[in-house]
Amino acid sequence: MEDTVLVVNCGSSSLKLALFDGQHRKLASALAERLNQNDAFACIAGDKDTIPLKPGTSHDAALEAMVSAFRDRQLITSVPAAIGHRVVHGGETFREAVLINEDVVSAIEECAGLAPLHNPVNLSGIRATLALFPGVPQAAVFDTAFHQTLPRHAFLYALPKAWYQDWGVRRYGFHGTSHAFMAVEAARLLGRTPATTSIISAHLGNGCSIAAIRDGISVDTSMGLTPLEGLVMGTRSGDIDPGLFDFLGSKGIPGDEVHRVLNQESGLLGLSGQTNDMRSLCELADHGHEPSKTAIDVFCFRLARYIGAMMASLRQLDALVFTGGIGENSARVRQDTISHLHLMGFELSEDLNKHHGEFSDGRIESAGSRFPVLVIPTNEELVIAREASRLAGAADPA
Amino acid sequence: MEDTVLVVNCGSSSLKLALFDGQHRKLASALAERLNQNDAFACIAGDKDTIPLKPGTSHDAALEAMVSAFRDRQLITSVPAAIGHRVVHGGETFREAVLINEDVVSAIEECAGLAPLHNPVNLSGIRATLALFPGVPQAAVFDTAFHQTLPRHAFLYALPKAWYQDWGVRRYGFHGTSHAFMAVEAARLLGRTPATTSIISAHLGNGCSIAAIRDGISVDTSMGLTPLEGLVMGTRSGDIDPGLFDFLGSKGIPGDEVHRVLNQESGLLGLSGQTNDMRSLCELADHGHEPSKTAIDVFCFRLARYIGAMMASLRQLDALVFTGGIGENSARVRQDTISHLHLMGFELSEDLNKHHGEFSDGRIESAGSRFPVLVIPTNEELVIAREASRLAGAADPA
Repeated sequence: MEDTVLVVNCGSSSLKLALFDGQHRKLASALAERLNQNDAFACIAGDKDTIPLKPGTSHDAALEAMVSAFRDRQLITSVPAAIGHRVVHGGETFREAVLINEDVVSAIEECAGLAPLHNPVNLSGIRATLALFPGVPQAAVFDTAFHQTLPRHAFLYALPKAWYQDWGVRRYGFHGTSHAFMAVEAARLLGRTPATTSIISAHLGNGCSIAAIRDGISVDTSMGLTPLEGLVMGTRSGDIDPGLFDFLGSKGIPGDEVHRVLNQESGLLGLSGQTNDMRSLCELADHGHEPSKTAIDVFCFRLARYIGAMMASLRQLDALVFTGGIGENSARVRQDTISHLHLMGFELSEDLNKHHGEFSDGRIESAGSRFPVLVIPTNEELVIAREASRLAGAADPA
Repeated sequence: MEDTVLVVNCGSSSLKLALFDGQHRKLASALAERLNQNDAFACIAGDKDTIPLKPGTSHDAALEAMVSAFRDRQLITSVPAAIGHRVVHGGETFREAVLINEDVVSAIEECAGLAPLHNPVNLSGIRATLALFPGVPQAAVFDTAFHQTLPRHAFLYALPKAWYQDWGVRRYGFHGTSHAFMAVEAARLLGRTPATTSIISAHLGNGCSIAAIRDGISVDTSMGLTPLEGLVMGTRSGDIDPGLFDFLGSKGIPGDEVHRVLNQESGLLGLSGQTNDMRSLCELADHGHEPSKTAIDVFCFRLARYIGAMMASLRQLDALVFTGGIGENSARVRQDTISHLHLMGFELSEDLNKHHGEFSDGRIESAGSRFPVLVIPTNEELVIAREASRLAGAADPA
């Protein structure tokens, strides 16, 4: 049991814990939601009793309660060998995962201006586990790190250069842990090495982003300074005309309200007026609900547009990869998206796509497709566990 | 001389007049700049004397002075057979050019909320010529009209649907007159009919936009609700992360100031810190000025990304077309852009590109290129003159 790895993922109002054994098999997981709110709650997967939390419970108090609950149920019987933390924003400081020390904590604090909703809660998770498990090696795994290889022409916006130099306004990109996992998994499924494999990776969950990965290295991605840019998402708009703020200002809507709506009431939810859940939208569309059909159409078209855009960063393409909740499970989204890409030579097998590539090593393209198309389940927790073990092992004097 | 056509193009602080004969050959042209400012001035092409304008001269007063100057020089000796006006925004009302009457004037006024800097000055030009040439058929030719064929999935943003329904927030697209001209000219050069020709048209001037044109019909474009979205431009940013406004707000920069900078101090000017002129940037880059090289790199990469994106709207591609001041004259921009598009099968002939396609019917691609690439000089005034003649002729009871 000394080889267990604990993975901590603090969201703006949620917290996920996962415990892995030495072979990186998941032993247990727990979830807390609505933290800092009156109806905060937590539970352990597969356990019918919830973990009691007081109203307004903070991230660190929830973490303590969840670790306690793991211990009560004998899920944690000793100190973990390593702890891995998801950290949203590593700025330009972190190009890869690192072991946490005082300097790293300070640097994560310095990046908080770029992710004010996320880095502070990531830090409170780090501080809580440092107190609970003193002496255990802890790693920070950044959403942005994988994209630090973007070339200058891809990460700079066409803005006054002082905004980049003084305030770090540039494309960072997110979902790096998932895209990095796709690069490795796609190579494995194709019988290639990651360092010679080039893919386009579409991570489609409630947040959505796409990345162009050349020879294992991220060279372009759709999310930018923040996770709001790019593809249509569950409640986020993705790309809009930057003139929208001025236009809506003339209608009396202040900028902070526009920002809130772009994050919380746009995307699939805004277009459909119903839900941000793709499965529900597909059912509504099948029953003739036009706005839901429109939401799916816009989602897929915008994704197809970005697949074309990503091709401008690649010299070869070994696979287009779909992942994330929608990418893994919606045959309709994959089919609708690929239907726009005929000119570029993509074509799906209706049958393989219907089964999500389950019986074909992830492959879903037709025999005539110019490029392979894969469905690969993502597993960000596993990547964080692996990184934490690797870094803890490398630091281990034994 | 009764067959002359006068073309009027009012910009936010400028005014261009062009006079065409019955065969649509240009007879004369005049330009006024810095209107409504202290240093307003006007001149006639090829004439060494400027046209005297008072400080603060308005669009309608400048138009009267310029028409007078044409008459004094015997350039206009009778009443024109038709007058064509460029109008920036036709909203969803105008899907094509129309003859101007009271209802059309009211409808252009109603669209002014979408283009507050442009439609009002376009209207003052219209009113001035209605007073100067009563009874002459006048046509309004809209920048947006050609793109009214965009499918729903391409014109809707992923925003609350009420913003579209109540306020018309959607992608309109601009430069339609130029893109429409490319569709016709490309077909002519390729020996095809426009209705069966599909192209990607890149209009690269101080403003830049790209359009996907399928069988002669616009199906996608990069500019949106306003002319700020899309490609990198002379002083405009094109696409940014919509989270930028909130981020800069936290640095104390109000939204209207961000909007001003995105329009006036971004793009090539912002990145280079020097100039928005592509020719000067290329010279600076050749002399080792890194920010100028970066500005060109970002410009070309972003254009290549959009060429890929436009391919998602086409089933065939008969030509990629470059036009506008930069598109027609910068072999470097065309070469750098196409260098990103190897995977999609584009390849230029260095020699043909160097000569801007001048001795090859516009063609600049190599023998091995999967798609033709053309350089075609744009001529928006000519399109406006043609449309005005056509509509005036159709209205003529004779």
